Amino acid sequence: MNPSPRSASRRLEESQVAIVGLGLMGGSLAWALRGRCRAVVGVARRAETVETALARKMVDQCTIDLEDGLSEADVVVLAAPVRVILALLDEIGPLLRDGSLVLDLGSTKAQIVASMARLPEHVQPLGGHPMCGKELSGLESADSALFRGCTFVLSPLARTSEATLALGRAIVEALGAHPLVLDPQRHDRLVATISHLPYLLACALVGCANQLALDDAAVWDAAASGYRDASRLADSDVTMMLDILLTNQAAILDALATCQAQLRDLENVIKAADKKALRAALTDIRASRM
Amino acid sequence: MNPSPRSASRRLEESQVAIVGLGLMGGSLAWALRGRCRAVVGVARRAETVETALARKMVDQCTIDLEDGLSEADVVVLAAPVRVILALLDEIGPLLRDGSLVLDLGSTKAQIVASMARLPEHVQPLGGHPMCGKELSGLESADSALFRGCTFVLSPLARTSEATLALGRAIVEALGAHPLVLDPQRHDRLVATISHLPYLLACALVGCANQLALDDAAVWDAAASGYRDASRLADSDVTMMLDILLTNQAAILDALATCQAQLRDLENVIKAADKKALRAALTDIRASRM
Repeated sequence: MNPSPRSASRRLEESQVAIVGLGLMGGSLAWALRGRCRAVVGVARRAETVETALARKMVDQCTIDLEDGLSEADVVVLAAPVRVILALLDEIGPLLRDGSLVLDLGSTKAQIVASMARLPEHVQPLGGHPMCGKELSGLESADSALFRGCTFVLSPLARTSEATLALGRAIVEALGAHPLVLDPQRHDRLVATISHLPYLLACALVGCANQLALDDAAVWDAAASGYRDASRLADSDVTMMLDILLTNQAAILDALATCQAQLRDLENVIKAADKKALRAALTDIRASRM
Repeated sequence: MNPSPRSASRRLEESQVAIVGLGLMGGSLAWALRGRCRAVVGVARRAETVETALARKMVDQCTIDLEDGLSEADVVVLAAPVRVILALLDEIGPLLRDGSLVLDLGSTKAQIVASMARLPEHVQPLGGHPMCGKELSGLESADSALFRGCTFVLSPLARTSEATLALGRAIVEALGAHPLVLDPQRHDRLVATISHLPYLLACALVGCANQLALDDAAVWDAAASGYRDASRLADSDVTMMLDILLTNQAAILDALATCQAQLRDLENVIKAADKKALRAALTDIRASRM
């Protein structure tokens, strides 16, 4: 089936929104947008997911056929791990309607936006990243309120029209989120520190506890809520995190280097047992925490 | 007033329990034990705290006079930052009744237990550390259910009698917590990794975000719940943490060195962009998280 000849709508309430990938993020977005647009069409990989999404009334229509799912879409949302989004961007060009908006929910932006620049000219691309989530994944964990109150980064390309960006903002606002326009490199540098580094610190902490447990299994009896909270991010979905680490390598390595320098500073002030300097350092850090 | 000549009781329900320090931990313990023993006597530094503790019925009696507070106590609980406990241990010897139990709630154990060994012979010392807490501090945050379900480490000394340890266990069980007997060095080594290291990692993360914010203030707009959760421990009470870092220096420096090695390993596998090795590392860490 060829894309519809009618040009895509620029108004959310008139738009058919196709969401490719019905995991935690895609499922939550579908659910939140249902009733706020003409129709929500889910595109899943597995027939079971189609059944669940329809049964739970998270979508108006649902299919495992990508071409079918995109054929009437005014807005296409790619909701998958970063490297799956990159693969989809190589594939969907010929399936997209004239003037349709292609928005993604990927956790890193530079490589995705570079790939979006290669989409056919008749398509309007817009990078996106909702700054929210849970350690849980999958449609079972979807929550129509997931995006409420969160910051939703939008990364327009040079060719993205004002009308498309306005439609992107309307989607973000329909979710109850706050749009924040950032260029992709700036986004990636920020999230390397505030999102990807915390994951790696949680992983390192788990590594330390495991190493200690080889000597003394009492570590697991003694581990309190502080440890469980501090290591919680290490329970994030591995495929999602792998794709993030592989597609934001340089910024993450920079953030790791900065963090190692911070740890060396703390180490030195502890080693010196300088009470005044240590109190000043901890007080400054506490006061500056947002 | 001289200590009562009658020897201290070994049964919790017949004991008068004096709690020195009515912050989060001491206040919660007082509240939880009230009604489970003959009387709970609070000893606070400020008259306001005495009024609050009495008004909220967290204690049966309350005073700012240490000698008064300890004169009839069968059990004395020291609930303060570690270095305040060390100072109290130097001071309370002459105020303690024959056979009374001295238990502490300090976050590190080796220095406290070494100091307990110097208490007068007629006293029964027992190191203690309830593995729970909140970032909040002060009597206003006290919660009679704070200890419920938590692990409560007990560190008996060579001279601690079986009857005293049994009374310690009875106190822990009255709080709804689980006793775990550990020698002080072993305790300190475990908590360096599972409790003090997470604090330092949160501090380093805040340091990284602050450094990034000097270049790009958008970091605070973009920071999501992941960052707030991961940096939460950096909001811990500074005096409490300062005392911990100063009294568990060696074990904490060991834990920091192990953590820096873990971060270097993660850095190397990210640098190599070896998908298989990276997936295997993240999968192992995720699976091993308790």
